[in-house]
Amino acid sequence: MLERLKQEVYEANMLLPKSGLVTLTWGNASAFDKESELMVIKPSGVSYEAMKPEDMVVVDLDGRCVEGKYRPSSDTPTHLQLYQSFRQLGGIIHTHSPHATAFAQAELDLPCYGTTHADYFFGSIPCTRPLSDEEIKEAYEKNTGVVIADTFQKRNLDVLAIPAVLVAKHGSFTWGATVQKAAETAIVLEEVAKMAAMTLALNHGVDSAPQCLLDKHYYRKHGANAYYGQK
Amino acid sequence: MLERLKQEVYEANMLLPKSGLVTLTWGNASAFDKESELMVIKPSGVSYEAMKPEDMVVVDLDGRCVEGKYRPSSDTPTHLQLYQSFRQLGGIIHTHSPHATAFAQAELDLPCYGTTHADYFFGSIPCTRPLSDEEIKEAYEKNTGVVIADTFQKRNLDVLAIPAVLVAKHGSFTWGATVQKAAETAIVLEEVAKMAAMTLALNHGVDSAPQCLLDKHYYRKHGANAYYGQK
Amino acid sequence: MLERLKQEVYEANMLLPKSGLVTLTWGNASAFDKESELMVIKPSGVSYEAMKPEDMVVVDLDGRCVEGKYRPSSDTPTHLQLYQSFRQLGGIIHTHSPHATAFAQAELDLPCYGTTHADYFFGSIPCTRPLSDEEIKEAYEKNTGVVIADTFQKRNLDVLAIPAVLVAKHGSFTWGATVQKAAETAIVLEEVAKMAAMTLALNHGVDSAPQCLLDKHYYRKHGANAYYGQK
Amino acid sequence: MLERLKQEVYEANMLLPKSGLVTLTWGNASAFDKESELMVIKPSGVSYEAMKPEDMVVVDLDGRCVEGKYRPSSDTPTHLQLYQSFRQLGGIIHTHSPHATAFAQAELDLPCYGTTHADYFFGSIPCTRPLSDEEIKEAYEKNTGVVIADTFQKRNLDVLAIPAVLVAKHGSFTWGATVQKAAETAIVLEEVAKMAAMTLALNHGVDSAPQCLLDKHYYRKHGANAYYGQK
Repeated sequence: MLERLKQEVYEANMLLPKSGLVTLTWGNASAFDKESELMVIKPSGVSYEAMKPEDMVVVDLDGRCVEGKYRPSSDTPTHLQLYQSFRQLGGIIHTHSPHATAFAQAELDLPCYGTTHADYFFGSIPCTRPLSDEEIKEAYEKNTGVVIADTFQKRNLDVLAIPAVLVAKHGSFTWGATVQKAAETAIVLEEVAKMAAMTLALNHGVDSAPQCLLDKHYYRKHGANAYYGQK
Repeated sequence: MLERLKQEVYEANMLLPKSGLVTLTWGNASAFDKESELMVIKPSGVSYEAMKPEDMVVVDLDGRCVEGKYRPSSDTPTHLQLYQSFRQLGGIIHTHSPHATAFAQAELDLPCYGTTHADYFFGSIPCTRPLSDEEIKEAYEKNTGVVIADTFQKRNLDVLAIPAVLVAKHGSFTWGATVQKAAETAIVLEEVAKMAAMTLALNHGVDSAPQCLLDKHYYRKHGANAYYGQK
Repeated sequence: MLERLKQEVYEANMLLPKSGLVTLTWGNASAFDKESELMVIKPSGVSYEAMKPEDMVVVDLDGRCVEGKYRPSSDTPTHLQLYQSFRQLGGIIHTHSPHATAFAQAELDLPCYGTTHADYFFGSIPCTRPLSDEEIKEAYEKNTGVVIADTFQKRNLDVLAIPAVLVAKHGSFTWGATVQKAAETAIVLEEVAKMAAMTLALNHGVDSAPQCLLDKHYYRKHGANAYYGQK
Repeated sequence: MLERLKQEVYEANMLLPKSGLVTLTWGNASAFDKESELMVIKPSGVSYEAMKPEDMVVVDLDGRCVEGKYRPSSDTPTHLQLYQSFRQLGGIIHTHSPHATAFAQAELDLPCYGTTHADYFFGSIPCTRPLSDEEIKEAYEKNTGVVIADTFQKRNLDVLAIPAVLVAKHGSFTWGATVQKAAETAIVLEEVAKMAAMTLALNHGVDSAPQCLLDKHYYRKHGANAYYGQK
């Protein structure tokens, strides 16, 4: 079942170590099939060298394994919570890519310092609050998703305009209409986090990019008046 | 038409990701044919893996597409403005290479801290002022070129002696007599920006290289008395 | 003798330069056979390109060469001391991987700033005190092992819960039940040291991860209630 | 003539870009034949891809070309001065490797912060004073060698115990009994400069390694009582 989605999820997973975002087995990719309400996700702790498309695991919204010989990623409840909170999403990537994780560990939002960031993210990428001890003990992975959703709701952020989050003391999640798009966004997130760290090292008091520049770059790639790329 | 120039522009474009200067489809190369007053430039948002020499787009000085099945790079008006302001240029490269972009995002000139820089650039590489909201809204890409030209004029800089600029909150442009030369300069710019950031991290109050050393290194590679390389 | 262990030690050694942890011939891997009380270790100063499984050297607990045509690693007495102090260990890796070595040279513990670290190490990775001049002159390599063992004893640390140490002004050792596991831990150590340095650069006053998060991440991968990976 | 030396110089030159020490055509390697008092050196500004062993240039101590169809490296007078000042040398490498160059641009000695450094260099690696305007104008490349030699003489340093120097605002030179050894030292210099920069970023007030540790590590690899490596 969902063979095409398994292939896409497999390819997105394989892109992560190839792009330098993932060490060992850290990180995972999933896609959500809106019709069947089933999620395809990477198996837990399987090495990238050995992984094949048919090893992807299919789970339902309650986290029950519907197909697959492996256990799903231990982060499965986070992915499921995000698909439930944000019904627009078709794919999600989780990594511990180093520069994005450094911002998450430092518990800092990633400000927009330039057009590279503005081409993909319409403003700062938020860092969540830390989970409480109760949230960690009760249902850690699910509550990670809940805290992400809370962050976007409280700050009134559009999940498709800011397709990434930093989870305090943990790592990053990126998403999109498809898992390929989410994987591309994971690559961009790490690159803009690296550039932001370099920028801060040169000038600690640096200003964020002005709103007008954000608007220009974001809308030249997104929405009805976009003119970047081919028709 | 301009088949040789298309091949050169294609090769310069391909050199950018290979040299680690470009992630995804960021960055573009162009060349200008002085006789026909036509520019050859990379198509917009086409992946480097799929790109072929014949995909390069030919446009005239008004930005009209003269040949090519793709839209030209969204930065086309910036390139055209630069060829019009600086008639000596035969090729231009735009990238978001990380260290150069960090200086641009920090809104800092890139000072000459040593002979690696002095071999290619006769002094600091300027960072432009930010574009005003009006300039962004009116004609963003064209005005990026106008602000670059203003920067060189106001500071009385020779565009061939300082073949690069940092655009505030954006990235870098490099140029030269040919697009190959502009691409080589893009590689050098990123390397000297990296070294400058490392130098500042070790010694925030470091002095720039003295003028006499700038003269020596620049003129041993450039001008009538050059003695670097083969005759 | 011990042909399977030689193969494992060889493969672990070869993984080190491949993973970017080792430059030239720096670094070494060993495994300990509990039954025979013999250690298999890399030969000293042999290049990785030329090294073969049969070049691994077998020594007894007194450091006498039992088999092998080469001298064992000059760090042999450190490895032997660690196997004697910590009888649970089956494999040990020594490297000068750059970020871990930077913490060692700075004489700083490596704090746990997030879940990447907590997945492998149950708290800070200790940096030893410097060896005294007497310890250096008397039996430098053996005393390196003694000081490591002292550090774990004095701080009351569990050697399998914190499977790594930073040796002041020197480099790192990692270990595990097998040499493969020790090599994986060496990769993780370098990655979390890199992330910690990046985190501190962004926020010098950053807090360590709370104990509850440490517990959660460590116990989801270790012990009776682990649920990461496959059964 | 000197075919074996040409091959060695060629191989050392090729190792530099392969090891990430050299960008474009920056950097050069030479070897000195004590019997004939002739030096073999890389041609100036020839690309590494096109270079062949027979392209190496042979010059005498006065800098006259004795054999070779290309001009020798523009740094030829520096190499010649060093072979004349330090008669023990058989090979010299010059690079602008980024971390070593950052210390040179910052005009800072590279202190010994640990055993990685102590295994190869018996103390701090000195940074020269800047050349005076007169020295630059009169005979820049030769005077670079003179200032290096002065630095070692005034500080009373042994050129084989400290086989490297940082030239203020410029880059590094390393040397040894052979050009292969000098190239290996260039790799080590860049790695220890990187680690030192990382160490300083973590702890600005860090102490250098104590003399006793320097002695131990240096003499376990060098001199009559060396026990590192194979006999």
